[in-house]
Amino acid sequence: MAAQPSGGSRLFPIIGDPVKYVESPTWLTETFVERGRDALCVPMQVPEGALDVVMTGLTATPNVDGVLVTMPHKHTASGYCSTWSERAQRLGVVSVMRRSDDDTWHGDMLDGLAFVKAQQDHGARIEGANALLIGAGGAGSAIALALLDAGVRELGIYDTDASREEVVLDTLDDARNRVRTTSADPDGFDLVFNATPLGMEDGDPLPVDVSRLTSSMFVGDVIAGHGVTPLVAAARGAGCGTATGGHMVEAVQDLMADFMLDR
Amino acid sequence: MAAQPSGGSRLFPIIGDPVKYVESPTWLTETFVERGRDALCVPMQVPEGALDVVMTGLTATPNVDGVLVTMPHKHTASGYCSTWSERAQRLGVVSVMRRSDDDTWHGDMLDGLAFVKAQQDHGARIEGANALLIGAGGAGSAIALALLDAGVRELGIYDTDASREEVVLDTLDDARNRVRTTSADPDGFDLVFNATPLGMEDGDPLPVDVSRLTSSMFVGDVIAGHGVTPLVAAARGAGCGTATGGHMVEAVQDLMADFMLDR
Repeated sequence: MAAQPSGGSRLFPIIGDPVKYVESPTWLTETFVERGRDALCVPMQVPEGALDVVMTGLTATPNVDGVLVTMPHKHTASGYCSTWSERAQRLGVVSVMRRSDDDTWHGDMLDGLAFVKAQQDHGARIEGANALLIGAGGAGSAIALALLDAGVRELGIYDTDASREEVVLDTLDDARNRVRTTSADPDGFDLVFNATPLGMEDGDPLPVDVSRLTSSMFVGDVIAGHGVTPLVAAARGAGCGTATGGHMVEAVQDLMADFMLDR
Repeated sequence: MAAQPSGGSRLFPIIGDPVKYVESPTWLTETFVERGRDALCVPMQVPEGALDVVMTGLTATPNVDGVLVTMPHKHTASGYCSTWSERAQRLGVVSVMRRSDDDTWHGDMLDGLAFVKAQQDHGARIEGANALLIGAGGAGSAIALALLDAGVRELGIYDTDASREEVVLDTLDDARNRVRTTSADPDGFDLVFNATPLGMEDGDPLPVDVSRLTSSMFVGDVIAGHGVTPLVAAARGAGCGTATGGHMVEAVQDLMADFMLDR
C-alpha cells in the first residue's frame, strides 16, 4: 500500500544528515497507511548547524505531530524536549519526539528496543547470554541498556574511544556487576553486536575480528541502507545466525507508530 | 499512482493556513510520480506569524527544492525571493518558489495562468471577450493580468474594497484602455469570474447578482476544496458554461511541476 498525501496529512519528519539512506519515510508511512492514518514520514536533510532553525520552524507548524531524529542530532535534539521517557532521560538521547497537548515535545529512545527485537525476531536468545557490544555512542548506549533490560547475563563493551566506554558504564551503573569493558575479540561470547558506523563506507575496517567468529555465535549489525555489511557477510560465512540493520529498521516501525499515535 | 516516500525524496511543501483543504499534496505529488520523480508535495500549516521561522527552517533544509505558497502568505513570501518572474515581480505576489543554484529562492505566480487555462479547457473563449472579475486581491490581480495577456477585449473589475481596485488598476497601467472598475452586476459581460473568498464558508453572500446571469455567459470560480460553490450551482442553473476552483487546481499542477523541475 502506498501513501496518498492530502492537505489533511499529518507530518512526521525525520531529521538527519545524510538522510537519503533512511528507510522510515517508506516503512513508517506504510505503517501509518496500514493503520488507516493520513500521515507521512518525510525526510528532511538537516545539517548539524541547522537543527535550531529547523526545530523552531517545525514547532511553529501545527500539523507536524512528531519528529524522528537520526545522526547527527540524537543528543542535541533531546534538548528540545520538555518531557522524556525514563530511558531517554537516562541516556540523554532521543530517537523520536511527539507533540504534547501543551505544544511541547516528549522524547523517547526506541533504537535499543528495536535492535533487541530484531535479534530476537531472527533467532537470537538474549536472556542469560554473554554479549559483546562494539560501539558505545548513542546507538550503543541505547542497545546496552535494552540488552540489560532484556536479561543478558554479561555484557562486554568495546569502543575505540575509552571516554565513551566510561560514559556508558556510568549510565549503566545500577547493572555494574553485569557490565565490563573488553576488546574487539568475539571469542567466548554468544552474541556479537556492532553499534559503530563501520560498514557504511567502502573500505571501512571491520568492527570485530571476524576470524574469531564461530557458528554458535549470533551476530547483529546496526548499519542499514547499505546492503549486507562485510560484518554480516563474514558472520554468515562462519555459519552464524545474523540480523541486519535493515531488520532493526523493520522492527522499529511498529514501535515508532505506537509512540507517534499515542497522543 | 500513489507516492512511495523514501529517504531520497525531494520536498516541495505547500505553506498556508488553513492548509487542510489544499489539493496540491495529492495532485502535484501524483504529477511528480507520473514524471518519474521521487518527490513529495507535503502540507505545512503555517500560521500568519510563523512564516519567518518556517521559511528560515526550510531554507536550511537542502532537500527542500521548492515551496508552494497559499493564503495568507502570498504577499509576504515574495519577500523571501531574490529573483522573480516578470509577472510575479509586477504583482508583488508569489504562488511558487524554487531553490536556485546559489541557495536563494526564485518566485513565480502561476494562479492567473492556471485560472485562464481552466476556463479555456472548459469551453470559455477568452480572446476578444468582455470579462467581469470580482475580487482584486492577490488571486484577482494575477487573474486580471493573465486575462489581459490572453487577449480579453474589456475587463471590468469590482471589489468591495475600492483601494484594492486602485492598486490593481495601477498594476495594469499599460493596459489602461481595456480595464475599468464596475459593479457586481454581470449584465452585458461574456465572462463572469469570482476571485474573492466568498463560497468557502456556509452562508457567504454570492459574489455576483446571479439573477442577472444568462446562458450565453461563462462563469468561473477560484474556490476549491469546498465542492460546487453556490455561484457555480447558480450559473449551471442558468445554463452557463462553468469552470470550478477544482478545475483551476487541476490546471495548475502541470504548470507547477514544470516550474519546480526546471532547475
